[in-house]
Amino acid sequence: MAGNPVWSVDPRTGETRERVAFEATPTDVDLAVRAAHAARSALTDRATRAAFLRAAAAALDAAGPRLTALADAETALGATRLTGELGRTGYQLRAFAEAVEEGSFLDIRIDRADQSLTPPRPDLRRWKVPLGVVAVYGASNFPLAFSVPGGDTASALAAGCPVVVKAHPDHPATSQLCATLLQDAAAGCGLPREVLRLLHGFDAGLELIRHPLVSAAGFTGSIRGGRALFDAAAARPVPIPFHGELGSLNPVVITPGAAAERAEEIAGGLAASVTLGVGQFCVKPGLVLLPEGEDGDRLAKALGEALAGAAPGVLLDHRMREHFIAGTARRAALPEVLAPVPAGAVGEHQVGAGYLSVPARALAEDGPHELLLEECFGPVTVLARYTGAAEVEAVLGRLQGNLTATVQVSAAEASGAAGEVAGLLERLTSLAGRVLVNGWPTGVAVAPAQHHGGPYPAATSAATSVGGTAIERWLRPVVYQSAPPALLPAELREGNPTGLPRRVDGRLEI
Amino acid sequence: MAGNPVWSVDPRTGETRERVAFEATPTDVDLAVRAAHAARSALTDRATRAAFLRAAAAALDAAGPRLTALADAETALGATRLTGELGRTGYQLRAFAEAVEEGSFLDIRIDRADQSLTPPRPDLRRWKVPLGVVAVYGASNFPLAFSVPGGDTASALAAGCPVVVKAHPDHPATSQLCATLLQDAAAGCGLPREVLRLLHGFDAGLELIRHPLVSAAGFTGSIRGGRALFDAAAARPVPIPFHGELGSLNPVVITPGAAAERAEEIAGGLAASVTLGVGQFCVKPGLVLLPEGEDGDRLAKALGEALAGAAPGVLLDHRMREHFIAGTARRAALPEVLAPVPAGAVGEHQVGAGYLSVPARALAEDGPHELLLEECFGPVTVLARYTGAAEVEAVLGRLQGNLTATVQVSAAEASGAAGEVAGLLERLTSLAGRVLVNGWPTGVAVAPAQHHGGPYPAATSAATSVGGTAIERWLRPVVYQSAPPALLPAELREGNPTGLPRRVDGRLEI
Repeated sequence: MAGNPVWSVDPRTGETRERVAFEATPTDVDLAVRAAHAARSALTDRATRAAFLRAAAAALDAAGPRLTALADAETALGATRLTGELGRTGYQLRAFAEAVEEGSFLDIRIDRADQSLTPPRPDLRRWKVPLGVVAVYGASNFPLAFSVPGGDTASALAAGCPVVVKAHPDHPATSQLCATLLQDAAAGCGLPREVLRLLHGFDAGLELIRHPLVSAAGFTGSIRGGRALFDAAAARPVPIPFHGELGSLNPVVITPGAAAERAEEIAGGLAASVTLGVGQFCVKPGLVLLPEGEDGDRLAKALGEALAGAAPGVLLDHRMREHFIAGTARRAALPEVLAPVPAGAVGEHQVGAGYLSVPARALAEDGPHELLLEECFGPVTVLARYTGAAEVEAVLGRLQGNLTATVQVSAAEASGAAGEVAGLLERLTSLAGRVLVNGWPTGVAVAPAQHHGGPYPAATSAATSVGGTAIERWLRPVVYQSAPPALLPAELREGNPTGLPRRVDGRLEI
Repeated sequence: MAGNPVWSVDPRTGETRERVAFEATPTDVDLAVRAAHAARSALTDRATRAAFLRAAAAALDAAGPRLTALADAETALGATRLTGELGRTGYQLRAFAEAVEEGSFLDIRIDRADQSLTPPRPDLRRWKVPLGVVAVYGASNFPLAFSVPGGDTASALAAGCPVVVKAHPDHPATSQLCATLLQDAAAGCGLPREVLRLLHGFDAGLELIRHPLVSAAGFTGSIRGGRALFDAAAARPVPIPFHGELGSLNPVVITPGAAAERAEEIAGGLAASVTLGVGQFCVKPGLVLLPEGEDGDRLAKALGEALAGAAPGVLLDHRMREHFIAGTARRAALPEVLAPVPAGAVGEHQVGAGYLSVPARALAEDGPHELLLEECFGPVTVLARYTGAAEVEAVLGRLQGNLTATVQVSAAEASGAAGEVAGLLERLTSLAGRVLVNGWPTGVAVAPAQHHGGPYPAATSAATSVGGTAIERWLRPVVYQSAPPALLPAELREGNPTGLPRRVDGRLEI
């Protein structure tokens, strides 16, 4: 029996574009996972994995205009943004190809036998092996970079794990095309197409996380959906790691010095960050601690002008649009909250950007204002006006974990010549996985040192979903004790025949 | 209101030795966690942490005979074993002191700003920060090395995390003495005594894992107890990582070639490994795949003689003794199971070693024989007699995750001159965290490359509880974006002022 049909919808009109596929039944899920599991040994060879990742990037590039047009039709994110996202996606795949070849992700550690120790030490040779089939849950807001061909998939394949993706319902056709491109690339490299499988459907996502042959999961989405999957992963007879990115408020603290020095510049940067991608980034700054007084007023005014002047946009789907309209209205209706530039509906399909303002002390206590400390997807932010450092701390003390935390400082504060900012940076470090000074959190650079994660609910683990170390999520260490050279993997033999970075008797050898 | 009294009991007699403390009430747990949390900033300085770990090791050494005598009175593990365990415990503390100074655990990665990239890359500087208060659950079978001053505590303190230990009820007095020694060592280094706190009581252990200020947990113990705590950790409003070592069968495969070549030697090694510490090691070999036929018979006979000749021993507590006696009897009563040398009670307080034998094919299917694939704490093992590689695979295919898997091979197989052993090693790799060739799993070497963990239920995470990388469990990455030098921690500044190993623009600098 087939599942329900899966429709592609144009968010600019609310109209159905086409029927893409059918929702996966429990049998479909089982077959997909078994097929991926059976294909796992094809991913053993690192050179083949690297070639496959590069072929996948090339296939996406070659499909460029067709792919971005399709993604735009399903998400309304626009050609410019989607072309950038496609570039980012290819860059990620190629970066993981390089990481696979370089090999330090294997974290090879060798301790040679030492009879002089008490007790004598046997020969120990450790590296990391792939966990097995990885379930990837595509994100609504990144149809490419955090979906089928995104960072979770790229890092899992790089680690040697087959992937089963659960497509996000906001872009099923894009997901389908990407899966075909990646499967073709696999076949072109002599790999079975089953190293990547695609499933549609909410129930299929739950079946997937519960499947005994699924070894780990990556997720980008809402707190509600992510927590339900996290709970299912933890409740399995054999629990599995669930690396989820769930939600983030991304607080910004603007010091009085910064407001005095750069009110208009900060307002411009903030408006751009809040409206980028129609406010649909997980790192959108959702709470801004701004000093009371003239400088803060000047900044708020400039922010309002910038937001009022921003073009209205289309959100990813109509459910999201309704949430945004209702959510901003509920927030604006709270006592002491002002909405000088109200965010909300524009016409039948669009929304306009805005901001809310509230005294910081209202956020420092239990009560209805806690709603302002919850993420609101879309082009809106909250200014919390503070009268001193104690109020800043009182608000920060109420925050959950975040992907990012930002501070805007004056030139003197940046140089260390003017007090207390180092302490504030330390405080923000306790709240987030990425801490920015005089920048904006949107635009997460793909780089070896990047960390995109943070205390719960920003992430459900200490791992990152962007950057070089994202591959660590899909591996586990194994150590060989007293294994004779002939039985060891080449990577672990004496003389380093495969030329990998290794830590031998405690010393790094590159 | 105080909790129930906590008694120290002599397992050699079953008699109560002394009242050690009272079980912690919910208020006690709350106060202990808050005090530890408040002390966390005292652990910021790495040099102080290293000095503290060394002082703790010295304090344990200085208390040596008194400490081992007390531990022996509570556990009956004997002076020799406990003196060895004390040495191991001090070695671990000192090894983590060195790791703290060497600093590669911070995994510093720096990507400098690069305007030439599309999009331009901001300056990114990543390191790892401590998670916060760590809950440690002491193990019954290692009153020192996996309890108050053990590897979980040492690695957590090394990471900069205060520790609250839940003592194991089998050795409350030893735990109390160790806690005092460590707290004195902390005070001697100018640290608050609250960097380590000790609690007693089953309910206190549950309160502890649920406390909002507890950030992570380390556990060594049973599947039942560990899973209950794992579930509680996952069910929190803010879930926390739970690194538990729960249970392991530690399969051994003896090839026909090995049995032909070294039947008596293998039997001797196996008997020693099964009876070491009265069979109370988590890495005790509990299932041995042995070929049918003359060589296997010879090995089984020699094993029986060695076990029958082993001195009876005292288990850690009377509950454990009852489980062992009942568990071995239930196993021996299964159809087709032989008990040529039955394990079981000796006198009122001791137990004797033994082994069971069963056709491997009986283990290859659903049914009552599944009991033989469950860990049985104490000096007993199961020989599964096989007729060929297919039966070996059929049994291995029914196993859960293990801490270790071992293969005994012939000289020709070890040299790679005789087939199939590399494939067997690969198969065992999928089942365990440590794979041994011609060795025995008991005696886990403390070494940088060691991995003591494995697929569930061996461990609840991909982490290790022994070896250099155990420290990774208690840290999370944070990246600073565009932070001016004056606001950065010294470890992340240009010029590497603190001389740490760092990966800069993708290249390792040592």
